Amino acid sequence: MIASSRALRNGRNFHTYGILLQSTGSFVFPKKELTKSKFIFDKNTQTVEQIIKNPSKFDDSNIIINGWLDKKPKKIGKNLVFATLRDTNGDTIQLVDSESLLKNRNAEDVLQIKGKLSAKRKAAFSDDNVDEYEIKLNQINVLNASNEKPAQLKDQKISGVYPPEYRVLQLRLRSQQLLLKRKNEVSKLLRSTLDKENFVEIETPTLFKPTPEGAREFLVPTRSGKFYALTQSPQQYKQMLIAGGVSRYFQLARCFRDEDMRKDRQPEFTQLDLEMGFANGEDVMQLIQNLIYETWSKFAPLSNKQLMTLDASGKLKVVTSGNDIYRMTYKDALTKYGIDKPDLRAPDLKIMSLREFNVHSYQNLDFPIFEVIIVRNAVKSKEDYENNWGKLLQRDDYSNRVPIGVPILSDADQTNWFDSFSEIATFENPIMLNKALRLQKGDIVFGSSREPDSHIFENPTPLGRLRQLILDTPKGGELFYQTKNDVAAWVIDFPLFSPVVSENNKMTSYPEYNTKLCSTHHPFTMVKLDDYDKLKEHPLQVKGQHYDFVMNGVELGGGSTRVHDPELQDFIFENILKISNAKELFGHLLDALAMGTPPHAGFAIGFERMCAMLFDRQSIRDVLAFPKSVSGVDLVVKSPAFVEEGVLKPYNIKYLSGGKNCD
Amino acid sequence: MIASSRALRNGRNFHTYGILLQSTGSFVFPKKELTKSKFIFDKNTQTVEQIIKNPSKFDDSNIIINGWLDKKPKKIGKNLVFATLRDTNGDTIQLVDSESLLKNRNAEDVLQIKGKLSAKRKAAFSDDNVDEYEIKLNQINVLNASNEKPAQLKDQKISGVYPPEYRVLQLRLRSQQLLLKRKNEVSKLLRSTLDKENFVEIETPTLFKPTPEGAREFLVPTRSGKFYALTQSPQQYKQMLIAGGVSRYFQLARCFRDEDMRKDRQPEFTQLDLEMGFANGEDVMQLIQNLIYETWSKFAPLSNKQLMTLDASGKLKVVTSGNDIYRMTYKDALTKYGIDKPDLRAPDLKIMSLREFNVHSYQNLDFPIFEVIIVRNAVKSKEDYENNWGKLLQRDDYSNRVPIGVPILSDADQTNWFDSFSEIATFENPIMLNKALRLQKGDIVFGSSREPDSHIFENPTPLGRLRQLILDTPKGGELFYQTKNDVAAWVIDFPLFSPVVSENNKMTSYPEYNTKLCSTHHPFTMVKLDDYDKLKEHPLQVKGQHYDFVMNGVELGGGSTRVHDPELQDFIFENILKISNAKELFGHLLDALAMGTPPHAGFAIGFERMCAMLFDRQSIRDVLAFPKSVSGVDLVVKSPAFVEEGVLKPYNIKYLSGGKNCD
Repeated sequence: MIASSRALRNGRNFHTYGILLQSTGSFVFPKKELTKSKFIFDKNTQTVEQIIKNPSKFDDSNIIINGWLDKKPKKIGKNLVFATLRDTNGDTIQLVDSESLLKNRNAEDVLQIKGKLSAKRKAAFSDDNVDEYEIKLNQINVLNASNEKPAQLKDQKISGVYPPEYRVLQLRLRSQQLLLKRKNEVSKLLRSTLDKENFVEIETPTLFKPTPEGAREFLVPTRSGKFYALTQSPQQYKQMLIAGGVSRYFQLARCFRDEDMRKDRQPEFTQLDLEMGFANGEDVMQLIQNLIYETWSKFAPLSNKQLMTLDASGKLKVVTSGNDIYRMTYKDALTKYGIDKPDLRAPDLKIMSLREFNVHSYQNLDFPIFEVIIVRNAVKSKEDYENNWGKLLQRDDYSNRVPIGVPILSDADQTNWFDSFSEIATFENPIMLNKALRLQKGDIVFGSSREPDSHIFENPTPLGRLRQLILDTPKGGELFYQTKNDVAAWVIDFPLFSPVVSENNKMTSYPEYNTKLCSTHHPFTMVKLDDYDKLKEHPLQVKGQHYDFVMNGVELGGGSTRVHDPELQDFIFENILKISNAKELFGHLLDALAMGTPPHAGFAIGFERMCAMLFDRQSIRDVLAFPKSVSGVDLVVKSPAFVEEGVLKPYNIKYLSGGKNCD
Repeated sequence: MIASSRALRNGRNFHTYGILLQSTGSFVFPKKELTKSKFIFDKNTQTVEQIIKNPSKFDDSNIIINGWLDKKPKKIGKNLVFATLRDTNGDTIQLVDSESLLKNRNAEDVLQIKGKLSAKRKAAFSDDNVDEYEIKLNQINVLNASNEKPAQLKDQKISGVYPPEYRVLQLRLRSQQLLLKRKNEVSKLLRSTLDKENFVEIETPTLFKPTPEGAREFLVPTRSGKFYALTQSPQQYKQMLIAGGVSRYFQLARCFRDEDMRKDRQPEFTQLDLEMGFANGEDVMQLIQNLIYETWSKFAPLSNKQLMTLDASGKLKVVTSGNDIYRMTYKDALTKYGIDKPDLRAPDLKIMSLREFNVHSYQNLDFPIFEVIIVRNAVKSKEDYENNWGKLLQRDDYSNRVPIGVPILSDADQTNWFDSFSEIATFENPIMLNKALRLQKGDIVFGSSREPDSHIFENPTPLGRLRQLILDTPKGGELFYQTKNDVAAWVIDFPLFSPVVSENNKMTSYPEYNTKLCSTHHPFTMVKLDDYDKLKEHPLQVKGQHYDFVMNGVELGGGSTRVHDPELQDFIFENILKISNAKELFGHLLDALAMGTPPHAGFAIGFERMCAMLFDRQSIRDVLAFPKSVSGVDLVVKSPAFVEEGVLKPYNIKYLSGGKNCD
């Protein structure tokens, strides 16, 4: 009775899941033995390095190595096949197979091989990085076979650059593995150093609140019909941590920006983010310059580099302590180099104002300064000029006006070159000017206008932009770069606020400012106390306690002393920036400041950017495991992707038009 | 001429920014002196700890301390005010002010104080944690004054729980600071331990690709009209890292889940995520149990706890090495405790099947087992039963049928108790049964039905759920908990697949399964090789190489050996799970497997959950700096928030209805 009832139950059970019992074998079902064999491997394995370092140890014993066939095995003789095994460290060793074990094997097959070590015969290939030994195979386990793709892409392997969708193969390159490991070493150094300085790593939310201004933020719909925004940086949360009594905070924080990525940017990136309570900018700058110096001391030599900066006289010098790092004012940077992140590897490629020679630009009286870059002994002929220098003056390369270039090719040029600038500038004493400049045939004069030293807001200036373009050319680099080392400097004394450029005037020759102000960096930056009195009535003349760390023409990081006075912060929001809903947007911060927030200052460094520079890589994509393309696409997993309209419904949103068909 | 033209220029410049020169002083502009004073503080400060440890050192010198007024200063005499300063470590010391320096000062004002150390007078308060010394003030700098709010919330301060919107004040509590610091210490230990084991920390993207199944993912609209999805875990990326030749990966990875948060969940959380190449589940379990053991050995004693597990006989034992951690099969867990994450702090509160006594449940033949929980000597009367035990049988607490409870209060009950179960079960030999059970007056029998041992998919079972509820009651805990320590175990041998429960039958007494299958954990989990042959035709009878790490009734983490055979993975997608667009969804992974991916296995631990348990906190919110509420709201910054419809336009989406007015 029980038996039968059990049978009945089983019957029922099988019935319930009956459908599943008919095999729907429209797809290959791999043979058990094949699959099982993929899990049979010895755990007591060696690496090529272990073996090469101590070969005698392995004289008689069987060697066991896990790895990949680095290329398709090569038939040498009737019963002789050569192959190269790449182990998990990326080291390679030659395999010799006289038992047809490698028959049908392919590049990138995953193997566990067993065999005996022996001295390598003459016939060996020469492109192994360890070529004194080889292994005579006596057994292999194929842990996973590869398809033909890797073999087809062998040229890409040699070039070291696979198509992005084959990132998995790119990652297997020794050079790429090294980048990931070194990046991890850098983060370990940063963490341990900050730990010694009593910083506590604290995680802050990335699901933040939308701030309409932040056009560069990603939105995240929720089922409540409301939206999170992904944090562009932990700025406000870290200031609230200081308000919460944390005296030294840091975080390797994931940040998100929905911005056009032309300039080697990624929609998500990591920044070393830190903040100090009961401290000011000077404390932070001390910390950061020491942190950078330690990091470069340890890692730059691996790329045969060292850290340099400028000395008081503007010459290059090797950094031997964090305190060496040169501090340049925003005004100096803009007047000498035309940008707030000058590439100081070419310290002598400077912009010169001709104001002291009574040269004035009159085209736009807000831009009264006429300045030049003089390139000496750079051209032989008109053609030479057009081919090498003229191409640096194309409209599309400039957001505003394009500089004028004048090659000095004749006696006439030598005396009357300034006629070419007559439309934009007046030259009140050309003789004196020519005496001073001593222009020779073969020189080039590039000239343009800019704002007065007291408030330069156009950044870069036309000549600042030109300077970048010059250094980007092989010829320019060769002429002006004085070092292959990394050259760092602080840039300080930024204007706290800048006039907003009228959108509709983006592409005119001069930026037109409307009467609205924006923060040059962010609204939480403290004013320089010396300028405090000007804050109320001349906000554009006020400098901020902000500091950028600049290297090789790139801003590696920036920070500031923050406003911790709630009334001052409120005044800046409402009266200067005219943010009408400041309470709604920043009430949490104002409340925190009002409940006893100590003075504080902080900093953030772009971690991938820093690693890319440290490792001499052109793009931050090289130091990311799975970077996104310039258009924000992950070409490996194919994201982003369209979703069915129905998927949007729970979030109370729908496609505005087209949806799946709208691209 | 120059002068004039310069004047002209300046004139123009002022004109350009003219608007800004009229003060729009509708808001307070803080006085310069007030603001300046907030930045005047000495850097050479001490902490209370430094002073108390070595008071003699400070006999004559001025002491300087930064901190907060811990409460409102208290006027003791005409020219005598007492106050308590809390320094940046959270240590407090008494301040004595005979110069009216603390006049008008308030709780949570930020001060830098200067003064002389002296022995404390009798009149001192007694609630300081260091009360041998006090400081006679001779100067204070008010670095930021606090508003009245903190003083008003002094009761909340004493209770240690502020309203969530005052998180900043909560964070200032010594206990809360300690949690953040300890959490950081735990992450340091995990990182250093894994580093020693040659794991490399590698960051993977959080902007991933939408997978329609993943109802629990957040979407991120992009300007391309397509969507990213925030990663629920780096699962697929880490498998591709292994495919990319990384042999040991880990990451403290931010993960995102759009799920109902009743069960102490957060929309974003961090998991310790790791994966090993050329390894299987056993290697991972070894690593994890050692990692947990090391972590508990270091931190559990701080909460007066140690790590325990079960021995072979099911008794509690102290863990003295990772290998001690007990391994329980899914079948054992479900038959003895009715759930796959049993709370083993009550090892003897077990469920008993009455099958061997020929008791069978007949109500639903897929649920033939009749099982009971017997609570001995627990009730005196019907009322007693109703008040203490009956309330554990409410419909809403169970997703399916509710167990039946029978208190044994009379001789009749003792012999005929099973009549109460006659509607669901047949009792073929009650006499034998009663002899075996030896029920006494005061005992309670709870009974219900379940599926046969061979395939239990209802999880928890009704009695498993009841067991949880019993342990949650003070009385139940007192009766059955045998320790206050943390009790851990592995749960292994899960079914690889489970039948999908028909949505429309969620609240019936028995789950109804449709014929679709889902992965019990995820589709990348490898089948146990012994069951391989059943995979094709009896997938529901197949066990997976998955392992959960369970502690105190909570799943701390889980992992598995992965499928690295592309054909097998494809077969599982297409034939078993019937995912029609598997190539579209998982093509990147299948491609990676097909290009030579080694065997691999991995694991993930919920980091906040682990810390909360380690620190004896009830909620993971306690170990987050800025947690979100149960409804996913950040009550400090007020996120999420509505956005204007116009903000959605660039993403090609709009509100389905209402938008800003839809809540």
